[in-house]
Amino acid sequence: MPATLITDLVVVLVRPRNPLNIGAAARAMSNFGVSRLRLVTPYKVAFREARSAVGAGAVLKGAEEFNTVADAVRDCSQVIGTTAVRNRALQHPLRQLGEDSGATVRGCLRAGRVALLFGSEKIGLTNDDFSHCHWLLTIPTHEEHISMNLGQAVAVCLYELARSSSTEPVPEQGEPAKSGEIEQITTGLYDVLNRSGYVKPGNDAVAEKKVRRLMLRLNFQKMDAKIFLGMIRQIVWKLRQASKG
Amino acid sequence: MPATLITDLVVVLVRPRNPLNIGAAARAMSNFGVSRLRLVTPYKVAFREARSAVGAGAVLKGAEEFNTVADAVRDCSQVIGTTAVRNRALQHPLRQLGEDSGATVRGCLRAGRVALLFGSEKIGLTNDDFSHCHWLLTIPTHEEHISMNLGQAVAVCLYELARSSSTEPVPEQGEPAKSGEIEQITTGLYDVLNRSGYVKPGNDAVAEKKVRRLMLRLNFQKMDAKIFLGMIRQIVWKLRQASKG
Repeated sequence: MPATLITDLVVVLVRPRNPLNIGAAARAMSNFGVSRLRLVTPYKVAFREARSAVGAGAVLKGAEEFNTVADAVRDCSQVIGTTAVRNRALQHPLRQLGEDSGATVRGCLRAGRVALLFGSEKIGLTNDDFSHCHWLLTIPTHEEHISMNLGQAVAVCLYELARSSSTEPVPEQGEPAKSGEIEQITTGLYDVLNRSGYVKPGNDAVAEKKVRRLMLRLNFQKMDAKIFLGMIRQIVWKLRQASKG
Repeated sequence: MPATLITDLVVVLVRPRNPLNIGAAARAMSNFGVSRLRLVTPYKVAFREARSAVGAGAVLKGAEEFNTVADAVRDCSQVIGTTAVRNRALQHPLRQLGEDSGATVRGCLRAGRVALLFGSEKIGLTNDDFSHCHWLLTIPTHEEHISMNLGQAVAVCLYELARSSSTEPVPEQGEPAKSGEIEQITTGLYDVLNRSGYVKPGNDAVAEKKVRRLMLRLNFQKMDAKIFLGMIRQIVWKLRQASKG
């Protein structure tokens, strides 16, 4: 795969707690030519220790910190969450890491920046984190020991994604919307639904996640997202006017 | 690959020095269903620490110690050395980890026990170690950072070797929405947009087509179409209430 593609991959560690794991993730990234590392609310001491460790390379030094997953993936057009969980009723399409999912990710990379999310060592990604993802990826591990070490999971995923595969056809596609654009739609539509009485009191958080997942599943193209956001904004305006009147 | 095959794989760590790496290698083995771990003259303190670490599993507890590589691979019919080195004039056939080499190893496993050797963190395997190998395996890494962390290298190799050679199942797709369902959404959304002042007078027909095309491009699944139609209907209801009030 040409170097220009894999450089558009963004590795996002969500709430990592162990400096060794942060360092290991960064090292695996260097090994496979991936340079963009982002951390969402890392345990501060861990991040500081990882950065100051002997041999901490350019990836770690250039790592960016964010307060929310939404902020960390704003400029990405495809967001993929990793999970060891398979039996739980997931709200998202779940794919196994392998030839096919690797090809899918490489296809997405041709269209824009792709974020690959890894959860914390203890609990992984939460449902709230998942709600920002277009789909989920799981590493096919042995049933008795499904949960991988964070640094090793990053290494295995990047190995598969960086794998060269010249035989892949280039699918024709427009420019997909970025997560930040979908988030604007989600926020707007959620506002409309709130004002319309669709969201039941006490059910706000669930409803917002539901709206976000639905909007992500629709795989908006950039132009369509723009049109739809314009519609939503007009509806918000109207509902505001109505509540004033 | 059937469990009976991967259990005939033997992971041999030659002169490992870091207890964390020994533990990480053992964990990756558990993840991919490989249970035979052998160590050749490990740094004693490291081995002791790794064994006594919290969470040290069955793999580590059952690990065997040997004084020489020859002893460690005595019962194996195929011995494969791993190396990051590519340019040095190697005396052995060198294969890249991937589909083909994975299939080769799986082929060897059908014939008998296979040993996969990993060298020490600092210097890897020596020429003397190589001399016990049938062939060498290298992980395709980025030219600038070819050398992987030991635990991560084990994880990546085992991921590839444990990979099922059968083609992956096609991810389950939901049922797509029917045109009639999209038309209900289009009609509802158009009504909302009309009531919100999005549709300019005299422009009705164009606007309705625009809405329909947009909704078709979104490729709704049946379930999503139903959810979205519910949202639209609630918004219509609210706008009707507002215009009455």
